[in-house]
Amino acid sequence: MAVLLSGRGSNFNALYHDSLASDSGYRVVLVVSDNKAAPGLLRAREIGLDTVFLDPELLSGCPAFSRQLVKELQFRNVDLICLAGFMRILGRQVVDTYAGRILNIHPALLPAFPGLNAQRQALEYGVKCSGCTVHFVDRGMDTGPIVLQQCVEVLDHDNEDSLSRRILEAEHRLFPRAVRLFFAGNLCLEGRRVRIK
Amino acid sequence: MAVLLSGRGSNFNALYHDSLASDSGYRVVLVVSDNKAAPGLLRAREIGLDTVFLDPELLSGCPAFSRQLVKELQFRNVDLICLAGFMRILGRQVVDTYAGRILNIHPALLPAFPGLNAQRQALEYGVKCSGCTVHFVDRGMDTGPIVLQQCVEVLDHDNEDSLSRRILEAEHRLFPRAVRLFFAGNLCLEGRRVRIK
Repeated sequence: MAVLLSGRGSNFNALYHDSLASDSGYRVVLVVSDNKAAPGLLRAREIGLDTVFLDPELLSGCPAFSRQLVKELQFRNVDLICLAGFMRILGRQVVDTYAGRILNIHPALLPAFPGLNAQRQALEYGVKCSGCTVHFVDRGMDTGPIVLQQCVEVLDHDNEDSLSRRILEAEHRLFPRAVRLFFAGNLCLEGRRVRIK
Repeated sequence: MAVLLSGRGSNFNALYHDSLASDSGYRVVLVVSDNKAAPGLLRAREIGLDTVFLDPELLSGCPAFSRQLVKELQFRNVDLICLAGFMRILGRQVVDTYAGRILNIHPALLPAFPGLNAQRQALEYGVKCSGCTVHFVDRGMDTGPIVLQQCVEVLDHDNEDSLSRRILEAEHRLFPRAVRLFFAGNLCLEGRRVRIK
């Protein structure tokens, strides 16, 4: 499995630690970042994982970036791509090459609050239930078939920080569960619905 | 409190039974329907509650319907209007006269799946968490400030009936809670956010 990240990589950490369990059924073989200084990338390097920095300045334009990314992934026989705070929209070549094999985690109960700053959107709307969603990535923005969701209660005194923190804790449990289901062959796509065997 | 309904009135039943508790803090003084044959209306009449049937054919056009409705409500000094499966969009006159005093229950976690057939929309989208929402009614369609929400898990084998049934059970608990909070003066509107004292 490859993990793509742009920031601190706390979901990468959760996935990496889960992968170490003897019954996890998967291994992280590559960490890719579009941000040279991403703490998640530095952490992966410390651990001794294979890492790749793809420079968006050098690989100007989405197609060149995508081509290079696919090359790196195919070279390592990656079966699944996990987007863990990857702040770049994946190019069509990647999405099509890895159709049904890319998972993203989003800090809201999709289809509510897609895109950036989902937690702030949720607070501004005034919902009482938010949460997180693991979904397959398709060509849209946060529109792919949903694998797992976890509800997180919004509290009266919540601000963006406190809500994000509680949702993040839920993310760290949810993402590894989804990855295990994928590698166990237990996810069954029927139209837009993902059934769990 | 007045309850407006168009169908079986299962939420009316839940509210009516809750209102009978000595500590409920509210009473149902009127049940209004736009459907002469609504089982909820017949049930209210059996119980001996004050009921009104507003004929949409006779009161053709939204303004006439609204005028008559406001008259009936004001005549009984109604403090709160609860929409319990009322299939008609309230006219501007009603919404403005009773601003902040109309509650609706919707069978989804708004802002996801507004409008009709919310449970079917949720199943077709493939979400894993749906639920129900009690919200204040504003001029939009299911857009008003949210008072309470309850998450209901969507199961792999769910169809529209089974999901609707489980959401309905949650509705029957959620709506009376919201009404009690309203009559206890514990709902505090701050912008779009409803804080609970």
